[in-house]
Amino acid sequence: LEAGTHRRMSEALVAALGERFAATTGSMGGPAIAIEMARGQPMSVIIGIPDEQACQTAQAILQNDHLKVEMTADVVGLELCSTLKNVYAIALGMCDGLVYGTNTKASLASLALAEMSRIAEALGGRRETAYGLAGLGDLITTGFSQHSRNRALGEKLAAGGWQEFLRTNTVEGVPACGAVGELIEPRGLTLPLFTMVHGVICHEQPAPEAMTRFLREFSYTGG
Amino acid sequence: LEAGTHRRMSEALVAALGERFAATTGSMGGPAIAIEMARGQPMSVIIGIPDEQACQTAQAILQNDHLKVEMTADVVGLELCSTLKNVYAIALGMCDGLVYGTNTKASLASLALAEMSRIAEALGGRRETAYGLAGLGDLITTGFSQHSRNRALGEKLAAGGWQEFLRTNTVEGVPACGAVGELIEPRGLTLPLFTMVHGVICHEQPAPEAMTRFLREFSYTGG
Repeated sequence: LEAGTHRRMSEALVAALGERFAATTGSMGGPAIAIEMARGQPMSVIIGIPDEQACQTAQAILQNDHLKVEMTADVVGLELCSTLKNVYAIALGMCDGLVYGTNTKASLASLALAEMSRIAEALGGRRETAYGLAGLGDLITTGFSQHSRNRALGEKLAAGGWQEFLRTNTVEGVPACGAVGELIEPRGLTLPLFTMVHGVICHEQPAPEAMTRFLREFSYTGG
Repeated sequence: LEAGTHRRMSEALVAALGERFAATTGSMGGPAIAIEMARGQPMSVIIGIPDEQACQTAQAILQNDHLKVEMTADVVGLELCSTLKNVYAIALGMCDGLVYGTNTKASLASLALAEMSRIAEALGGRRETAYGLAGLGDLITTGFSQHSRNRALGEKLAAGGWQEFLRTNTVEGVPACGAVGELIEPRGLTLPLFTMVHGVICHEQPAPEAMTRFLREFSYTGG
């Protein structure tokens, strides 16, 4: 999301290139840690381009034995999920910094996915997109990989060293957290996990206290 | 799933205890690796009991500062997801045995979740249950934790040593794979990942070849 304007990537591109490129400008998402990709490991991504024929052409060009390409018509959901997963990966990283295991991280990932689907839907995307490669797939990779800077920032927010880390690394989840916060603020959604991360990133609340309080006080309602 | 009868756990219990226990017999699912639980780490589980009052009582008794308890009315989906995730965790373990990273595992987890939701729905549960703690949450834990026997079996199926491992360990995903296969066979669902794992577990196809062929030949369709 572009700071200030809150435009998604394809919107920013079309604004720069001109309306005549709107139908053929799209995005790619999904679990794609670069170093694993460079090693030729099997993986899948998801592409969304408004023009169906252009999308199929892109799939045909990109797909090979190592890289499988899913297509979606939901460019909005795809781009929102690709942004949101960076924010939630910071939360999963905080768990690493607090030396919590997979039970804790998997609980938060479930919660993250529910919130991502709610945000995507509220902003014009489809819930289902969050349950696929662009949401769940990318969240798992970003939240569990040693190569993710968003996860690493969360770890350092909880265990120390985040100031130094931010001086030497660009971490997409930081500006994304602010932009998403501004964008969804008027919608009145219930997003307890996002709200906690937002407090840490945008209001400098100490991460160890914010996360442990969240985990202690959070409660499931309804059924 | 009970071998032969294909009864879910609560069905088998009610069959043994009597019909008058049907409304108050349920299940618990979600990410719950025992050793992490024993260490008092924060975690969440999900319970399903047909009688709403009994479910709320169980929640009130079980919930504390470390353990959060979500409730669901979908006992069928909860029990199916808790079974299915063991089967799919074997597939994620195979990736570890082939030294694939998180891109590969996250792609397969997305595919697993889509198949789990399809199976749960076809057998009378709700798709949404697969996207929560009982499906996604437990799949992440089981598929990524070093403490999971289902994941470990997958690793040894791909890298060697599975015969010895099965002699000394009970691995729930093995009988589950057979039972689920029998149960869904007449439904005609499209389940490429399940079919691959079923071929390895129930028809002794070599895991390294089955998994690498699957990853090479799999293709996304539709959009």
